[in-house]
Amino acid sequence: MQYAEPITKLIKAFSRLPGIGEKTAARLALFVLNSRKEYAEEFAASLMAVKEKVSLCSECMTFSDVDPCPICSDPARDAGAVCVVSDFKDMAAIESMAGYRGRYHILHGSLAPLKGIGPDEIRIRELVSRVGTGRVREVILATGFDAEGDATATYIAGLLKGAANVSITRIASGVPVGGAVEYMDGATLGRAMDGRRTL
Amino acid sequence: MQYAEPITKLIKAFSRLPGIGEKTAARLALFVLNSRKEYAEEFAASLMAVKEKVSLCSECMTFSDVDPCPICSDPARDAGAVCVVSDFKDMAAIESMAGYRGRYHILHGSLAPLKGIGPDEIRIRELVSRVGTGRVREVILATGFDAEGDATATYIAGLLKGAANVSITRIASGVPVGGAVEYMDGATLGRAMDGRRTL
Repeated sequence: MQYAEPITKLIKAFSRLPGIGEKTAARLALFVLNSRKEYAEEFAASLMAVKEKVSLCSECMTFSDVDPCPICSDPARDAGAVCVVSDFKDMAAIESMAGYRGRYHILHGSLAPLKGIGPDEIRIRELVSRVGTGRVREVILATGFDAEGDATATYIAGLLKGAANVSITRIASGVPVGGAVEYMDGATLGRAMDGRRTL
Repeated sequence: MQYAEPITKLIKAFSRLPGIGEKTAARLALFVLNSRKEYAEEFAASLMAVKEKVSLCSECMTFSDVDPCPICSDPARDAGAVCVVSDFKDMAAIESMAGYRGRYHILHGSLAPLKGIGPDEIRIRELVSRVGTGRVREVILATGFDAEGDATATYIAGLLKGAANVSITRIASGVPVGGAVEYMDGATLGRAMDGRRTL
């Protein structure tokens, strides 16, 4: 089927999104065709706005339309605790827990030498200089527990080990809440066992 | 989690797409944030372009950036055969079969009285006046075989019955190619039996 060229272009734009295949992209483009013109206009304007108005917070590297971001400029948030995450989405997940009152550092990736992602490709330098200011008391490494997340945490811990008066911690790995022990894999149970605490 | 306002707006725009929930919308917005600015610009431009350049072909009501559309202006396509479908996607499916050499008429919906969609809400009037020109020899009703598609086909067949020298046909209903008879529902098997042909 030959779609008209503007439709083909829109399908192509949609299909570049993660998890959106050619068929779904065609369905989404058709939805836009069938919808009111205002929707397409608002959609287009919001696409432009995120690129024009949103940039990285110079403190924590999160996406924000103000600099420093609301969390970094909030005096109620402990500037001495910095939770290091790979991604904006990880930060969103921790924020949704609502119990953490420290601040963040977003790496925008994990170390993955096989994919060509080394320390210079992610925001590690910014973290090191932030710790260098002496205002950070604890760095909480909250990268994932896959190979890349673990390697990233280990690398950063090694880098910061020399920093005076900074404790470097790693969030716990183990059986998730609601998880049945019988269904856990051996690696998870091993971590859970290693991390056991006295009650 | 409080996203910056431009991000929230983009998430809202994505989540209005069919099949895209709040979480997926956030993931897609983050992808745009992480991607090059040119991608967002092209995406925004293509959203605007489909609304500005694409409209309905005055002959067959399909979405097209030229009028009449490529199929209606193709002398190799039989102007005497008009295949009536509910939706642009149905036309795309029939075109992908590549065996049909007639033309189309897109209704942009099916009759659904309970949803307030009557004959005036879909493009039936345009079909009737097209048949009225006397150039149409056969109207092939290819609406779906659900209740709404069937009702639409029956309604159009009734409307066009009086037209001189026009045969009104309905595409066949039965067991799909590759379908096992044992798994077919009774309604499909009943249709298949009714539509049996001499070999």
